Amino acid sequence: MKTQYTDNRYPRVVIIGGGFGGIEIAKGLKNKEVEVVLLDRNNHHTFQPLLYQVATGTLDAPSIAFPFRKMFRKQENFTFRIADVQRIDEANKVLDTDIGTIPYDYLVIATGATTNFFGNKDMEYYAMPMKNVKEAVGIRSYLLQNIEESLLKTDPAERAPYLNFVVVGGGPTGVELSGAIAEIRNHILAKDYPELKKEDMNVYLVEGLPKILANLSPQASEKAELYLNELGVKVMLNVQVTGYDGEEITFADGKRIKTKTVLWSAGVAGQFPEGISKGTIERGNRIRIDEECRVVGTKDIFAIGDVAAMVTDDLPRGHPGVAPVAQQQGRLLAKNIIRIINGQPTEQFKYFDKGSMATIGRNKAVVDIGKIRFQGFFAWWVWMFVHLMSLVGFRNRVVTFINWTISYLTFNAGIRLIIHKYRRPNRIEELDDMKIN
Amino acid sequence: MKTQYTDNRYPRVVIIGGGFGGIEIAKGLKNKEVEVVLLDRNNHHTFQPLLYQVATGTLDAPSIAFPFRKMFRKQENFTFRIADVQRIDEANKVLDTDIGTIPYDYLVIATGATTNFFGNKDMEYYAMPMKNVKEAVGIRSYLLQNIEESLLKTDPAERAPYLNFVVVGGGPTGVELSGAIAEIRNHILAKDYPELKKEDMNVYLVEGLPKILANLSPQASEKAELYLNELGVKVMLNVQVTGYDGEEITFADGKRIKTKTVLWSAGVAGQFPEGISKGTIERGNRIRIDEECRVVGTKDIFAIGDVAAMVTDDLPRGHPGVAPVAQQQGRLLAKNIIRIINGQPTEQFKYFDKGSMATIGRNKAVVDIGKIRFQGFFAWWVWMFVHLMSLVGFRNRVVTFINWTISYLTFNAGIRLIIHKYRRPNRIEELDDMKIN
Repeated sequence: MKTQYTDNRYPRVVIIGGGFGGIEIAKGLKNKEVEVVLLDRNNHHTFQPLLYQVATGTLDAPSIAFPFRKMFRKQENFTFRIADVQRIDEANKVLDTDIGTIPYDYLVIATGATTNFFGNKDMEYYAMPMKNVKEAVGIRSYLLQNIEESLLKTDPAERAPYLNFVVVGGGPTGVELSGAIAEIRNHILAKDYPELKKEDMNVYLVEGLPKILANLSPQASEKAELYLNELGVKVMLNVQVTGYDGEEITFADGKRIKTKTVLWSAGVAGQFPEGISKGTIERGNRIRIDEECRVVGTKDIFAIGDVAAMVTDDLPRGHPGVAPVAQQQGRLLAKNIIRIINGQPTEQFKYFDKGSMATIGRNKAVVDIGKIRFQGFFAWWVWMFVHLMSLVGFRNRVVTFINWTISYLTFNAGIRLIIHKYRRPNRIEELDDMKIN
Repeated sequence: MKTQYTDNRYPRVVIIGGGFGGIEIAKGLKNKEVEVVLLDRNNHHTFQPLLYQVATGTLDAPSIAFPFRKMFRKQENFTFRIADVQRIDEANKVLDTDIGTIPYDYLVIATGATTNFFGNKDMEYYAMPMKNVKEAVGIRSYLLQNIEESLLKTDPAERAPYLNFVVVGGGPTGVELSGAIAEIRNHILAKDYPELKKEDMNVYLVEGLPKILANLSPQASEKAELYLNELGVKVMLNVQVTGYDGEEITFADGKRIKTKTVLWSAGVAGQFPEGISKGTIERGNRIRIDEECRVVGTKDIFAIGDVAAMVTDDLPRGHPGVAPVAQQQGRLLAKNIIRIINGQPTEQFKYFDKGSMATIGRNKAVVDIGKIRFQGFFAWWVWMFVHLMSLVGFRNRVVTFINWTISYLTFNAGIRLIIHKYRRPNRIEELDDMKIN
């Protein structure tokens, strides 16, 4: 691949994936004597923590997406390509991609995680994941399509499946998503659909563990559950999903819920191209890296973020799959690659945990910062401020601020648009085919 | 169909299509003793005059779309359904739709116009129309995909077709679209794609008549052409398109341009369900109506806007297919329907022409208001003000204002996102299938 920088023949750092980790390392290499090549399947970075607000119509999709070319237009040593990397050829130091063969001197795998259905084909087939903008927009359409569809059913038993929304997985994504759907039920349903009552719609949050937000403090877990109850979300704990046939979801304890909509946020797994030695793959399909983010057993291949597991005695499963880990690893690795090139000693990664938070609804959030834990109105403001400031781009911050303000004041913000109709696959073969029309 | 209003059994007015005309008549019937049922294929009204800004990435799609349910949530006698009306059964006063049979007492056909390819199957197959939000988002994706794709071609001859953009049709849509694409070329191309020069990209506007904006004043036409030349658009007048095979567009004079992208804004035709007597169909597939907007030869069926032709001695082809005609007809028809129900005399339609305008680019627009004609910077401000105020919804106006302001100040606004990849059909059968992935 020829880039605008090729002629100089500085060492080429190829980064696969422009998530939180990938963009940090690219930025960290600005003005350095390297050629930076970023490859991604999309032409934009996605701010994943707010995907649920796109899925529930509070934000427009462009507010949480930012084109890479716009982001890096002032970085001279930067080249971007839309590409799907199929295989890493370590021996020849090249990548096999859908746009041809791309050589690298240093490779950074920052490909993140994808939805993990734990081998349940039925679930993969019928449930909806939410890991990118297209999937979030698909959920928005599908929720609205189902409410519209429910109006055509006069028999309450026939109507119910369209108005039962089941979210599986009680981590931050599941909590935020189910809370936001409950707010649609509480504030919008009866106003937009005079034929329906709030009580016609049910939102379930299903979690296999005895508590939600298991990675946060006990206070945060308890308070989040209380908030969800207040919003009318039916929280089901200690419940194992056994199956879903597109019409009815079943649980290990014999319970069942008739529903057209199962949103799956119960697990993630690392995703990466072929060519990584099987021996280095850890639990959750993450690539084992050393404390300098180097893929164990390789020389010039690094991995950061959700796709990587820095397994140590203290952390037998590596760091949690959250944005700050990826960002901090990206920033350090940028420095380390320059040190390696210059023959200087490198620095080991130390994670600085800034805390965790989740929002449940209007005025309701939980925040853990080290030993400091708080919940409620102030936590909600902290959550909003942190997320607003983390968004990429002035335009996106302003537009998001406006959407949130109008939403808060009117109880009626919302981009309740069906632009691309979501069509659920009817056959297993359609899975790989497009799901959004 | 049962609605929340059915029990009262007021006369039911069914409106097919929620464009500019359809929403005016629904609003005009607020608090009247009728049941209003609006049917549309989409769940939102579309502000079509700004579709080109979505196609060229200045505005996000939700800014120019507004959900019907949100629009009418305070109107008690209003019911909305997503529906595709297949047939009008005048004898039984019912509609056959994809959601069942819907009875009406008064029917308003406000189904608007669709793209007219004048029977050219190849063109319909390969060229891109722009009549709804999904098509506009598809154009945005496709433009960006082609620029990305061009980078993979090292041979200039191979690269050219990806960077040649041909707009067919020199009406306001074609002028605005080609101008906006030229601004991407002038202000964004070289910055976002350092491998490319401005000169690598070509924008063509093709018109069969001797001038563009033929419905506006000669001053407006001339000035618009000058502005387009200044922006670097290659305006081709008196040119008839003869064919397009997806790779090369050919013209009657023997000229040909290799291009992957032909945007078609050369014609529209009325679209409406079956059941309208052939004898009432005028040129451009419009339904002939009398001066009270009643479909000629019927009693309780009306048609307004682009789908209708109020043919008189003065206007042998009916009114122009513009929003103000539809809006004024909708407002009058709402009053007339109430008068008909109350046995009062009805009023005949008189079109009040508020003028025409088109924007070509930054600081460049043309405005005709009766005998008053002006062009340039002030015209551009008038255009912006009128369009901003015409948008539906406070949120949409604020967000659009912000997008325009940032765009103006930075030369770098732009929602250059590929969220749903546009996939050009490879076989004729795919035409009816989804084109956006």
